[in-house]
Formats: sequence, C-alpha cells, structure tokens
Amino acid sequence: MKVNGVSYRTIWRSEADPNQIQIIDQRALPWQWEILTLTTWEAARDAIRDMAVRGAGLIGATAGYGMSLAANAAPVSSMEAWDHWMSAAAQGLKEARPTAVNLAWAVDRQMSLLRTEHELNSRASLAAKEADQIADDDAACCQQLGQHGLELIRSLAEKKTDGEPVRILTHCNAGWLAFVDFGSATAPIYAAHDAGIPVEVWIEETRPRNQGAALTAWELGKHGVPHQIIVDNAGGHVMQHGWVDLVITGTDRVTRTGDVANKIGTYKTALAARDNQVPFYVALPSSTFDWDLVDGVREIPIEERDESEVSMIQGWDSIHQTPGQLRVAPEGSRCRNFGFDVTPARLVDGLITERGICEASESGIASLFSENFENKEN
Amino acid sequence: MKVNGVSYRTIWRSEADPNQIQIIDQRALPWQWEILTLTTWEAARDAIRDMAVRGAGLIGATAGYGMSLAANAAPVSSMEAWDHWMSAAAQGLKEARPTAVNLAWAVDRQMSLLRTEHELNSRASLAAKEADQIADDDAACCQQLGQHGLELIRSLAEKKTDGEPVRILTHCNAGWLAFVDFGSATAPIYAAHDAGIPVEVWIEETRPRNQGAALTAWELGKHGVPHQIIVDNAGGHVMQHGWVDLVITGTDRVTRTGDVANKIGTYKTALAARDNQVPFYVALPSSTFDWDLVDGVREIPIEERDESEVSMIQGWDSIHQTPGQLRVAPEGSRCRNFGFDVTPARLVDGLITERGICEASESGIASLFSENFENKEN
Repeated sequence: MKVNGVSYRTIWRSEADPNQIQIIDQRALPWQWEILTLTTWEAARDAIRDMAVRGAGLIGATAGYGMSLAANAAPVSSMEAWDHWMSAAAQGLKEARPTAVNLAWAVDRQMSLLRTEHELNSRASLAAKEADQIADDDAACCQQLGQHGLELIRSLAEKKTDGEPVRILTHCNAGWLAFVDFGSATAPIYAAHDAGIPVEVWIEETRPRNQGAALTAWELGKHGVPHQIIVDNAGGHVMQHGWVDLVITGTDRVTRTGDVANKIGTYKTALAARDNQVPFYVALPSSTFDWDLVDGVREIPIEERDESEVSMIQGWDSIHQTPGQLRVAPEGSRCRNFGFDVTPARLVDGLITERGICEASESGIASLFSENFENKEN
Repeated sequence: MKVNGVSYRTIWRSEADPNQIQIIDQRALPWQWEILTLTTWEAARDAIRDMAVRGAGLIGATAGYGMSLAANAAPVSSMEAWDHWMSAAAQGLKEARPTAVNLAWAVDRQMSLLRTEHELNSRASLAAKEADQIADDDAACCQQLGQHGLELIRSLAEKKTDGEPVRILTHCNAGWLAFVDFGSATAPIYAAHDAGIPVEVWIEETRPRNQGAALTAWELGKHGVPHQIIVDNAGGHVMQHGWVDLVITGTDRVTRTGDVANKIGTYKTALAARDNQVPFYVALPSSTFDWDLVDGVREIPIEERDESEVSMIQGWDSIHQTPGQLRVAPEGSRCRNFGFDVTPARLVDGLITERGICEASESGIASLFSENFENKEN
C-alpha cells in the first residue's frame, strides 16, 4: 500500500542489490520510518525474533527470504556441507518465534523444494525465486479476499445517500503491515477506498499493545483512508448510536466450525455488534484455518503474556523526542495479560476468504474448502 | 477506608484546627500520597475545579465544606453584606464543575439552611455542622448500600467450597475515593472483606483515564483486598472462562426505568456478563436517579471530551521519578473521546441502593422509591 504516495510492500528485494532484502522496521512505527536491510539469514532471524516484522503472513515471507539468504551463502562443495549449513539455518529461523505456524511452513517449503534440485549451484537462484513466490502468494491471497470483501462494502454503499461513507469498525492490526501487502481485515477497506467508495474506519486502539492506534491508524492514514481512533471501551457506544455499518477483524486461528481466536477484546466487540445488528465479519487467508479444532473456547490455548504489557505502556515522549514508557498500574497490584480471546461462531456473520465469503459454520466453511473436510472424514 | 492501616475519609476536619478542611489530592494517586489543607472557599473551589477531588459524593461534600469555609469569613455587619459575600461564594463553587449535580445541591442546601438562622453570628457554626452532616450522610448512605450488597456476596460465598473467593469484576472507580467513604460499587466488596468473606476483584483498567488501574487498584490494595488488573478488552475473556461470579459497577445517572449511564465501556462489560450468565449489578446512592428520564440511550446526553485523553496517556515515569505523559496515537489521526455510555436496563440484573436491592425497571425502582413515582403521576 502507499506511504506518502509511494507504493510499498512490507518486505522486498533491494533494487540496488537483488541479494539484499529490505523490510520496514515495525518496532519504530508509528513514530519513526526506518528501512532495514537484511543480508544474512541471521539478520532475517533477528528481525523475526525481535519483532521488526510481525504478523503471520509477513513472518512467513521473511522466513522464505531468510532461507534464500542462507542459500546464497551455503557451501556448494558437497551435498553434506550444503545440508549441514542449510539445516542449521532452517533450525535457527524456526526457533525465532516457535509458535508462528507460517514460519515453519515457509522454511519447510523452501527446504523440500531445494532438495529436488540436484545441481547445488542452482539452488540459490531457485531459493530466491521461491522466496519471491511465497511473498507474491501472500499478497495475492490478501488481494483476492479484499475483492470478495469489496462486494460486501459495495452492497452497503448502495444503501447510502449523498456519498455518505460506509463506516467500518476494526480491532487490532490485521493490516498490510501484518502481511506482505493489503492485509486481511484491511484488504476490503483498501479495495473499496481505491475503487472510489467512500469509507470511514473506526479503529479500536487495542490495549494492551495498542496495535490499532499505533499500526492500523498509521497505515490507513498513510494510504489516505479516513479514520478515527477510539478506546476499546467506546466500540459499543458507537454501534449503539448507529454509527457503524460493518465490523471486520482479522484472526489468528479459526476452527473448522467457525470459532475465531483473535486479539483480546474481539469477543466484547462481537457482542456489541450482535446486540446492535451490526454485521460482524472476519477476514482471513485460508492458511489460518485449524482443520483439527471444533470448539474454540475449549480447545484454543490462550497465551498469557507478561504482566508488564498491562502495567507499563509504550509511546512517544514528545519532550525527549524518543520512544518512552510509563507505569500505568500501582506497584504491588498484580496485572493479568491474556493475549487473545475466542469469539464463538454464533456471533460471526461471515468469513471473508480468498475463495469467497462463507458462513462461520462447518457447512459454510466446507462449501468453500471441501477438500479439508473430505480428509477429516477418513 | 484504610490506607496503610490508618482509617481515612476522602475529606475531613483538621484535628489541629477545626476551621481547616483536609483532602487527599487525588491527582497525585496512585503515585504520590499528598494531603491538601483547605482554609478558604476559593481553595475548595479550586480543589473541585482542578479535580484534586472527584466523584459525585465527594464533590458534594467538598462543596458543603466550601460553604462552611465561606461562612467562616463572611461579614456579619449586615444581612446584605453577608448575603453578598455568600452569594458570590455559592456562585463560584457552583461554577467549578457546572454539570456536577451534587455540587449545586450541596451549595443550595447550605444556603437555604443558613438563611433560616436569623442570628448572623451563629451562621458559621451552623454551616460547619451542616457540612459535617452532608459528609456523614454520604458515608452513611454508601455504608448502607454496602450492607445490602454484602448479602448478595454472602449468598454467592455460600455456594463456594474450601474458602474459594467470590470473584467480582468492576469497571472504573466507584470507590471510596469518589465518595466520602466506602464508595458505591466497592461498598459491598469492603463490607464482605471486612466480614471475613474471601473476595477477589478483577479491575478493568478503564481507558482512557485509567481510573480502574490507577484508583480502584490503589484503594483496594491499601485496604488489603486481593485484586488483579486487566485491560478492558479482557473482561469478556475472564467471564467466558467462568472466573467471574458477579459484576458490580457504579453509575453517573440512572433513569426511572433502570437504564444506567456510566463510564465508557460499561455497556460492553454488561453484554459480556449477560452472554455468560454472570449477574450484573449497579450500586448507587438514590441521589443518582434521574426521575425525569425514561429512555437512557436516547435521553442521556453523552459528554464528548478532549481527544488528547485518548491520544496521550498519563502515568509514572520511573526514570525521571515524576508523573509523565506519552503520545499513543499517530500525529494526524483523529481520536474521538466519548466519556460515558448507557447500559440498557435489560442487561442489568439489579440496582443496589441504600434502601435495598431492586430490579432495574420502573416497577422495581418504584418498590423502593414510591414517593418519586407518585409525584410523577400528578
């Protein structure tokens, strides 16, 4: 998407040197704009581990490029030497964020492909092409789901008069910053905006890490999409007063029955949407489905994170012109920090995927992804 | 309630000099403990205006003492001179926070009482007694509603085994800091704790001003009540997992039909309580009822406050050992800051008042406060 009028992805091959990979350092956003250049697989690992890149799609793409950087430097003297080097890189990359499913997936995809090429000297160029392909696939998938979501927004726009905007509420950052481009929850919004449909976005700030206020507001602002930030507490109020036409969020994991795990607070927002008859949609590339799970609330483990994310807050210190942090809870009071919650399928009006929009139910999901249900019936 | 083992009210007559009034400077909490001494009505006005004191009950009590301080200094040379001086004080106090109903109420109560005393020299001591009475009444009212709420908690405790605590969730600060003592939402909690019933409180931090994390956690901690702070987003998750037995909040205004205006986010929390069959109660002194209103969502005006409360956050800067503030939203992104929301009566399981607990409905409220309904039928 655009940043100050220039189109960017979150990860790309350097124009100056195609053996170098560049990323936006997301730790510095929204306060500072910094491009990092990765020249080794270790640098790619560090970028993932230290969260310069984050989000399922982007982590996968960075891992793909990490394997390509490893292949550039791998010894081609013998198959054994190559394998030893590349296995160490694969292992190192996977350990950068062990719970990120896309990370292991991208590493394994590269490794098994490269082993099919018997000419060792050709493997580096093959890895480079494959890394580009992984990134392109991620962007294409998001773009496609954006086109399906666009139709949903278009149908709401048709009910508006006098160019009144379609008002969409979102939670957290399921934006292009979390993928290679377009994003999941934001893809329909960007598609509508770029198609000339007036949209206006309510962004819940998304405590404790404030990815809504910090990242979603930044990226919508840079692309020129009108938006307003509210505290998470205000999401119910704006819906109650009829100021929201549609809610779209992303997700970290969806069960085969349509239960949605997403950033903490999504469940409360979904309850407010249902209470006010505001349609609540979840946008996801189908790689986010967990085909094994049937009961999200019971089966999806919820990460409890460090309490300092609740007791301390990060932001921009305007006086010292530097990122800073403040304590917001008294010393001696314990804080609890649940990272995600589960929104039961009954509160979800639909899932927006790269194959189309479906009901958040086993039969709805099977209507688009039947192959995953046939397997399960074995 | 207790602070480091010593019993405090939020406002009291100085032991050293009964003509001086002392308050806890709440702007410094939870980081610093500061007692301010008020010796003039102007100092009382400033304390209200600058929010050294806040909360309906405490604002009323401070206004009562402000009028007493004014009476101490009023000229007794002539009725006219007295009236001129006291009217100016009354006016000045009322303008400190024009929308605080209890403020005008306490000022007018003093003024009309004092005018019944024809001996000008006796008015100062009458005002002093009346100020004490206003404060005592506020504390007694909260204590009484606490006793009614205690029975509710006791009945939940009886279902527990092995001394398991009753787990109560609250939002914002409806604590003793907002009143003269005991608080509204916290009064049943303190009563249960002091009666030896094990309780544990989930405190929603309550963005944007974080009164839950800053004030409720501080006062429960100082009194020794076990508690845990969560982000507002996590309230649904902890209820979904069965970790909450009861929700109690305070309120800023309740319609005669039981709709509840309270700090922004209360509505989402009430929705989560209902979705998980967690009883949702609202505690209030009956002065909080607005006997004229029937439809809270339509009729209660919601204050939209400065957007800087959302884009900037206050806290404690541990490095510089001083209160500080940080920007948490990008420059150029608009923030909206709705101060309150309305929870419809259908989501409220009961109202805890000084006369007992009733249904949040016209008939329920009339069963305890019939005199206000008879008037309306005229």
